[in-house]
Amino acid sequence: MTYCLAIAVDEGLVFASDSRTNAGIDQISTYGKMRTYTWHGDRALVLLSAGNLATTQAVVRAIDRDLAAGPETRSLATLPAIEDAAEYIGELSVGSQQRAAQQAGDIPTGSLEATFILGGQVGDHPPNLYLIYPQGNFIGPPTGQSFLQIGETKYGKPILDRIVAPELPLDRAATCALLSIDSTMRSNVSVGPPVDLTLLRRDRLGSVAYWSLDQDDAYFREIRDRWGAGLRRIFDELPPPPLQPESRR
Amino acid sequence: MTYCLAIAVDEGLVFASDSRTNAGIDQISTYGKMRTYTWHGDRALVLLSAGNLATTQAVVRAIDRDLAAGPETRSLATLPAIEDAAEYIGELSVGSQQRAAQQAGDIPTGSLEATFILGGQVGDHPPNLYLIYPQGNFIGPPTGQSFLQIGETKYGKPILDRIVAPELPLDRAATCALLSIDSTMRSNVSVGPPVDLTLLRRDRLGSVAYWSLDQDDAYFREIRDRWGAGLRRIFDELPPPPLQPESRR
Repeated sequence: MTYCLAIAVDEGLVFASDSRTNAGIDQISTYGKMRTYTWHGDRALVLLSAGNLATTQAVVRAIDRDLAAGPETRSLATLPAIEDAAEYIGELSVGSQQRAAQQAGDIPTGSLEATFILGGQVGDHPPNLYLIYPQGNFIGPPTGQSFLQIGETKYGKPILDRIVAPELPLDRAATCALLSIDSTMRSNVSVGPPVDLTLLRRDRLGSVAYWSLDQDDAYFREIRDRWGAGLRRIFDELPPPPLQPESRR
Repeated sequence: MTYCLAIAVDEGLVFASDSRTNAGIDQISTYGKMRTYTWHGDRALVLLSAGNLATTQAVVRAIDRDLAAGPETRSLATLPAIEDAAEYIGELSVGSQQRAAQQAGDIPTGSLEATFILGGQVGDHPPNLYLIYPQGNFIGPPTGQSFLQIGETKYGKPILDRIVAPELPLDRAATCALLSIDSTMRSNVSVGPPVDLTLLRRDRLGSVAYWSLDQDDAYFREIRDRWGAGLRRIFDELPPPPLQPESRR
């Protein structure tokens, strides 16, 4: 399983992902689910992936192939806006699934579906995030919500619902993303470290901050411990329910 | 959708459920998912249900029918232990699903599956909890975990993972159950108030505390507000990540 998320705040974008890949309980390995493409001063794009590994790897290879083909080719380097890049990723994904299904013929493949988050900034356009469905269509964050998630999304959603807002500073959004991933790792063994974290500051094209944090990273451990102890303290300070001990139904 | 949970601590058992029923986005109503059966001094049982409403209602009718048939009949009143009652509920559930499928014939029914949590205390046996699968088999809480959940379980699991332990006092476990349901209601519109809450104190057979809390209940609102404000405060006190702003990938 996988958990990836992206947060959009006024100062820029945060991307985070775990790196556990699970092909059955006796075959767990780590695999990067985050890729960053930057052209200094022109554009910065980050791609997160969840789902079938063959499909996500085929999409990444196709991206690299189109980039290598030069400036005449439709690619992440040449598309004029993030929306166009999201549509392009959707086409690569559907094409990869179709080819894999055709090659497999009668061999059962299981689901070939993959879901992506693409975010970044192109030129003077504002930074933006899109979720790209396995069917190739794509959407931005829902109204009133400044984040997108793919994979094992539910455990880590409550903290995002409570904390994330457009005015949250970029580095605080990064802390929130790490806590969302930590909540997921605690509740689901198939999501695991290291955690990849990328910050893309608005209008600072081509310069992204990247970090890979393992379970023992000093900062990750500090916020995890303080968050856990803080939750416990708030909980202990809550008043008990005013239930009568002998009330009967 | 539905969210129900039960917590087992040394002092007894807590049961909580939402009451929203969803048969499509234009048809949302409230429906109790918690039923309590008590025989003063002998036994107290609580049943929580999630899944197909026809199946859960057929199971409840069958329970009532067997209870009305008197002391010679195998029923929640006469079965010697909670394990036997869990097996009995499983049989009623499978039977209901089979009858509904046979009646439907070629008419597509959608999933007829229902999942139950049965907990309580019978005589001198220790209190116990079981999760009953749609296939009729049943399990207790996993090793190292003192709670069970059914329905929309993931949003409300992180707080249970952090707080619930056997030594938690019964009334604190009730507060934790309410926060778990609140987190779920915030993140998923198909889980909604009022919240049913039942406390069963160990060795106080037949005397259960029951509460129905709507969104505006003073206690529910107080813990929700204090919890939300407390989380925000802990978050604001966390240190920022020591990322260099110009680090490059």
